Amino acid sequence: MNVGVIGAGLMGSTHARLLAREVSGASVAAVADPVAPGAVYADGFDLIADPAVDAVVVASPAATHERYVLACLEAGKPVLCEKPLATSAAAALRIVEAERALGRDLVTVGFMRRFDPGYVDLKARLDAGEIGTPLLMHCVHRNVSVHDFFDSAMILTDSAVHEIDVARWLLEDEITRVTVLAPRPSGRARPGLRDPQLVLLETAAGRIVDVEAFVSAGYAYDIRCEVVGEDGTLELLAPATVALRTGLAERAAIAAGFEQRFAAAYRHELQAWVAGRGGATAWDGYAAAAVAEAAVASLESGRPVDVRLA
Amino acid sequence: MNVGVIGAGLMGSTHARLLAREVSGASVAAVADPVAPGAVYADGFDLIADPAVDAVVVASPAATHERYVLACLEAGKPVLCEKPLATSAAAALRIVEAERALGRDLVTVGFMRRFDPGYVDLKARLDAGEIGTPLLMHCVHRNVSVHDFFDSAMILTDSAVHEIDVARWLLEDEITRVTVLAPRPSGRARPGLRDPQLVLLETAAGRIVDVEAFVSAGYAYDIRCEVVGEDGTLELLAPATVALRTGLAERAAIAAGFEQRFAAAYRHELQAWVAGRGGATAWDGYAAAAVAEAAVASLESGRPVDVRLA
Amino acid sequence: MNVGVIGAGLMGSTHARLLAREVSGASVAAVADPVAPGAVYADGFDLIADPAVDAVVVASPAATHERYVLACLEAGKPVLCEKPLATSAAAALRIVEAERALGRDLVTVGFMRRFDPGYVDLKARLDAGEIGTPLLMHCVHRNVSVHDFFDSAMILTDSAVHEIDVARWLLEDEITRVTVLAPRPSGRARPGLRDPQLVLLETAAGRIVDVEAFVSAGYAYDIRCEVVGEDGTLELLAPATVALRTGLAERAAIAAGFEQRFAAAYRHELQAWVAGRGGATAWDGYAAAAVAEAAVASLESGRPVDVRLA
Amino acid sequence: MNVGVIGAGLMGSTHARLLAREVSGASVAAVADPVAPGAVYADGFDLIADPAVDAVVVASPAATHERYVLACLEAGKPVLCEKPLATSAAAALRIVEAERALGRDLVTVGFMRRFDPGYVDLKARLDAGEIGTPLLMHCVHRNVSVHDFFDSAMILTDSAVHEIDVARWLLEDEITRVTVLAPRPSGRARPGLRDPQLVLLETAAGRIVDVEAFVSAGYAYDIRCEVVGEDGTLELLAPATVALRTGLAERAAIAAGFEQRFAAAYRHELQAWVAGRGGATAWDGYAAAAVAEAAVASLESGRPVDVRLA
Repeated sequence: MNVGVIGAGLMGSTHARLLAREVSGASVAAVADPVAPGAVYADGFDLIADPAVDAVVVASPAATHERYVLACLEAGKPVLCEKPLATSAAAALRIVEAERALGRDLVTVGFMRRFDPGYVDLKARLDAGEIGTPLLMHCVHRNVSVHDFFDSAMILTDSAVHEIDVARWLLEDEITRVTVLAPRPSGRARPGLRDPQLVLLETAAGRIVDVEAFVSAGYAYDIRCEVVGEDGTLELLAPATVALRTGLAERAAIAAGFEQRFAAAYRHELQAWVAGRGGATAWDGYAAAAVAEAAVASLESGRPVDVRLA
Repeated sequence: MNVGVIGAGLMGSTHARLLAREVSGASVAAVADPVAPGAVYADGFDLIADPAVDAVVVASPAATHERYVLACLEAGKPVLCEKPLATSAAAALRIVEAERALGRDLVTVGFMRRFDPGYVDLKARLDAGEIGTPLLMHCVHRNVSVHDFFDSAMILTDSAVHEIDVARWLLEDEITRVTVLAPRPSGRARPGLRDPQLVLLETAAGRIVDVEAFVSAGYAYDIRCEVVGEDGTLELLAPATVALRTGLAERAAIAAGFEQRFAAAYRHELQAWVAGRGGATAWDGYAAAAVAEAAVASLESGRPVDVRLA
Repeated sequence: MNVGVIGAGLMGSTHARLLAREVSGASVAAVADPVAPGAVYADGFDLIADPAVDAVVVASPAATHERYVLACLEAGKPVLCEKPLATSAAAALRIVEAERALGRDLVTVGFMRRFDPGYVDLKARLDAGEIGTPLLMHCVHRNVSVHDFFDSAMILTDSAVHEIDVARWLLEDEITRVTVLAPRPSGRARPGLRDPQLVLLETAAGRIVDVEAFVSAGYAYDIRCEVVGEDGTLELLAPATVALRTGLAERAAIAAGFEQRFAAAYRHELQAWVAGRGGATAWDGYAAAAVAEAAVASLESGRPVDVRLA
Repeated sequence: MNVGVIGAGLMGSTHARLLAREVSGASVAAVADPVAPGAVYADGFDLIADPAVDAVVVASPAATHERYVLACLEAGKPVLCEKPLATSAAAALRIVEAERALGRDLVTVGFMRRFDPGYVDLKARLDAGEIGTPLLMHCVHRNVSVHDFFDSAMILTDSAVHEIDVARWLLEDEITRVTVLAPRPSGRARPGLRDPQLVLLETAAGRIVDVEAFVSAGYAYDIRCEVVGEDGTLELLAPATVALRTGLAERAAIAAGFEQRFAAAYRHELQAWVAGRGGATAWDGYAAAAVAEAAVASLESGRPVDVRLA
């Protein structure tokens, strides 16, 4: 598969490197970026139109996702779009509808955690019934720090959105109501940033998911997830490989960032996409966007907000 | 110290055994119980009045706590009262006021977790500033199962009340608002029992504490606690001593019940009490009762409930 | 790289599948196997001679390794040979010498642990000086069970040989003496099998490595490794991804076999080989064979045996 | 029980403090020490003769143990003697014989690990058959550092002797042969000290126990123990209570010294002794001394040394 990559920033160049060196059956046909020196195209639409490009990875700024994905649909080319699928639920829904009108499943959304060995194992064990019916889920999403442009809403739309997708995927249940609480902010957060936040998700089947989203956590990129069922619990383990014992302590490293924590997930995601195996759909991208949008409304209003999917 | 023990049920007999065999400087002078065959007194007030009794442990049914503790205050004898201090915040406040009027600190409330080696270590490290200012706290309180008389409110007043006390003690911060959510109940819970529950505590300093209280968890007595601070997190580790590797797995045992999980805490609590060292005060017992009462109101109303201490 | 695979048993088919589906820049040009139905060639030499084959993976029975590897050298084609490189140290040395005479590094030996993320991390931390100078190393190598043809010597030449390679690679130190002790055998071992064995390796720099090799361990495929240095220790963690809590215990899975435990290592090994990046050399294969041979002699004699490399 | 304590050094004062404040049914009747300011007696024999002393703890220098224990036997008083029971196997045997002649079991040896909750749990599970017949045992005994008077033989007689006792107790099997290997010494060890050492114990039933004894390990007081059986393994877990996450790592504390690591064991040992419940016998003290003596001979000769008990 000859893949064109739109965007040569951190995510785009990571995808390009993996496609070129670590994924079987793929090669990078072209890169589009308005400023990156090595890019073949400045304009992503030119890349999509290139007949040498079989399929497209969209890793450009979020505001451009909708139109690139729609262009891929028009061109009839498979597209793997980094999350978010679009910057509003309405825009994401337009993609869902365009794909439906086309009658072909061409859109995959880059919720890479669905390919992380830990989450995959957790899902398999849930599905195998190891803990019976799930009732609750506790999640933690902590980043060391974020850029200055990261605002309080992005903690929901860019960070917690991963847990929103994971919750839907693991529980196979739609989220119907969101409540966001914000305690006193960390002194590490820049002034005005509501960080950390505690997100409560209620599902159609009556389950509750709580998510601590904390992007100024300072100490590590730390992702935790525990599902509580009627017969027991399943908890994601932090993927440490080595224990160091020095200075009166045993230490296991925690990742510094998502690139490191989910390195295997990104490769598996691309390998699966190239091989035509699954991933998050346009609908998943839309549902996650709708829940995140409700979460932002709850953060602003201080009240529970209902989610109504199309 | 010659101790009289009121109540010869599970807790009373545990305390009596520890006082007789595992605590230095103590002996059991008398036991009062209306039905237990070996008890010296049928009536707890007779025990309190016995001049051979220097101090009293109250481990009788909760409904009797207030009057026994007030009788101890009148008799000027130190009293260690099992939680709850009383069955309502108002009753607990009467004890606080009676003790204040007396001008002597005679009442200790049996929140034994304050003496658990794990919680003690956690508190010492928090106080040493290892994670900076605390912002959030995540707690889990799971029991294998409960008796038939255990109702939805008791999940708050009897189980989660331990986390309420722990939160106040660890954070040194009063709880000002409580919200209780109840997801779909477990199939293991008897009909009508709202189990599990998710309790959200907001504090005067703006912190948030979430508590999963789940008394039909089925698999073990599992107590978890993580405090999230500005510089990192501190998490209680389950006190396993041995790893067993068989059948394609490594296993560490989790306690079956609180007697096992907090065996050391109960002994340390009694040893500290006999030696005149600390423990939860009447005020702590009152504050915990007031928060638990607000939690019950929230469970019933489905809304946040403010806590106003006297 | 168009790869020919000699041998279509478990290892050969695993390598072929990975090359075809999971490794970038590789394709399977041909498979040789005397009996497998899908093989292109019955005879490995024909495969080596095929001009469409750029490089060869040797995964046939150990007795055939020497002659296939020598044929690859004659043909000037890179070869990745499953361990052991040959069935005797003398034979392995012939390969070393043939490669030297040719003046090109064409031989890689399939000690895949050098590509396992855990071992790679351990090596990087050792090299970074996190524990200072290494003094001791403790290893465990346990299999659930072995086939009936597996004899006492193979516990050393087929199982413990991995630890022999790992010790040389991690410590960058040659092994100069071997002592093998065999306690009472497990009742799970077939009659006559000396299982478990305790292997003691002494190095040129005076270090000691102990290896428990136990191929009838029954419960799992369990690989452990701890390096003890002057400033602390580094220990490989078992790569569990999920904790299950049920039945009064927390459980983490342990692999059932090497295919599962080292799945990532096999892929990384092939990807590195295709990309021309490192791996164990013919000399490493020879040194491991020489140490394993000395170990067999020690098992038979009950005495320490010196290792003298060419 | 009115206890006299001979020796007011670290161990003696620890025992005295525990007896006075943490052990039920005990009080400290007198302390004997030639130099300590608060001691009642300068001479331990005067303490033993004191009619107010019911039982004696011997925590004086090792060279004095034999004569104090024999004096207790003559006085017919129970004695808890810190390890070693005596400074030679022959001396320890004299105590065994004196006690036998007396016909009363009065001697307990302070192998406190038999009362550590972790070892107690390990023993209970072994005895319950959780891993079937034990075949191997791996032990680690690391100290941060030792005093200048600590010599190479003391690594065996003072440190590894705990593992010798633990192996005999856990396996219920006598040790019949000892081999000691010493790799290159740590740069942290003072010149001439053979540290670390690797001790191999073979038992009457054909089991093998390996012990890494390393008293200049620098980083912590770290005690490890794994028993390998026919059906699985049991491993002591380091007793951490809290996990700290900061600086890209999760950390669990390891003890700085034996006082901290075995604090609970020392209390349980004394409580059991006061209550007349078990502990290591004079025979256990003798057997451990005989094995340690053989280990010293092996260290000096570089060869296996057989142990022949009386």
